[in-house]
Amino acid sequence: MSEAPQLRVIGHVRSPWPEKFGVPRQSGLTQGLEARIELDRELIPVEALRGLEGVSHVWVLSWFHQCTSWRPTVRPPRLGGAARLGVFATRAPHRPNPIGLSLVRLLGVDDRTLRVADLDLLDGTPVIDIKPHLPWAEQPSDARCEWAAEAPEPLPVRFAPAAEAMLVDASERAAIVETLRWDPRPAHQRDDPERSFGLALFELELRFTVDERGVVVLAITRSEAARGSVHGAGGGAK
Amino acid sequence: MSEAPQLRVIGHVRSPWPEKFGVPRQSGLTQGLEARIELDRELIPVEALRGLEGVSHVWVLSWFHQCTSWRPTVRPPRLGGAARLGVFATRAPHRPNPIGLSLVRLLGVDDRTLRVADLDLLDGTPVIDIKPHLPWAEQPSDARCEWAAEAPEPLPVRFAPAAEAMLVDASERAAIVETLRWDPRPAHQRDDPERSFGLALFELELRFTVDERGVVVLAITRSEAARGSVHGAGGGAK
Repeated sequence: MSEAPQLRVIGHVRSPWPEKFGVPRQSGLTQGLEARIELDRELIPVEALRGLEGVSHVWVLSWFHQCTSWRPTVRPPRLGGAARLGVFATRAPHRPNPIGLSLVRLLGVDDRTLRVADLDLLDGTPVIDIKPHLPWAEQPSDARCEWAAEAPEPLPVRFAPAAEAMLVDASERAAIVETLRWDPRPAHQRDDPERSFGLALFELELRFTVDERGVVVLAITRSEAARGSVHGAGGGAK
Repeated sequence: MSEAPQLRVIGHVRSPWPEKFGVPRQSGLTQGLEARIELDRELIPVEALRGLEGVSHVWVLSWFHQCTSWRPTVRPPRLGGAARLGVFATRAPHRPNPIGLSLVRLLGVDDRTLRVADLDLLDGTPVIDIKPHLPWAEQPSDARCEWAAEAPEPLPVRFAPAAEAMLVDASERAAIVETLRWDPRPAHQRDDPERSFGLALFELELRFTVDERGVVVLAITRSEAARGSVHGAGGGAK
């Protein structure tokens, strides 16, 4: 029995988000956006995944490696950034043990790689466990969370002509819309209507603002050196 | 960024089960049986729990401290102990990182102690995180797990006269029924109808068998020295 247990990293996330800004705030929001879990081939034999083909949704337990400190209370973006809640009443990543719990749709398994949708994790995030979701045990009909009772409302997203001209295909456009429609701006930076924000997605650099009608993508830049991402071979979180 | 992250134990479980035999195989089964999560008063300020009063169900992340080894495949009791599945397709406690994920009903919070129902953890289990369950994100309507599609069927439980005579109150009887009706016997020990089993529950030692009509509680012994349990002051898992 160990009172200070040591974790093993069993794999890593490959997702569209190379930086924290823009990562979805909860799993299940960015429907259809694909990501991968690449398990460590040295540590995990392929038999350890046998039977996952009969499972529709899995829990991904991860380690928020960029969250190294925590405070007893946090200000959830959902509450406008003003109200404070205890960290254990929220899903904030800065926790005594910065463990992430993400419910994702399992699209397929190829050797030691899981293809998933609806993930909410930074590219390069260490993975520590995969478990099947059990609907009969984990969907209580009378469950409620008063301060976050329903899914957030997405914003409409539109593209300025200069941004529209940079789009290569429909899946790229869909990924941009899925990421921006949940309004990634910090609550305390939402007051200035002139302010624009930069956000990395795959190898793209987006610039956007938010007006009274929703999100406007102002510009899209394609970076020359593709970073480590779901499209790249390796890399990790910046 | 640490590639081999160190966990902090933030508290411990106080449950009716001082030994592994008899611990429910999933959360949500033993409805109404109360347990406690006692958070570490040195590490966790009371503000860290603020807001939990508006949350009906929480995730308890725990460390299966008695599960120190793992194998790529396991034989789930649910499948009769014969079929092998990959460990990541099951909720078996022996995993690369033996982390438990239990959805429990939150009955109340008193200072640093959470009163919960439906827990499936050994008395003394280290706790590593508490998170609110978010129904809108974590109850996908089309979820399925083919090999464990529905809740298991409970067995009827009856008491032999000698056992009946030892019962003190209705809550004790309910705790015995809740624990035994899920048939704690290992799959490979279910063939011999003459066999009886011993099981510890609070400070009770139960002896039971299973016949064609269900579980029969043959005898109940009350141990002199109350062990560490939900009724005791301290103690831990044996």
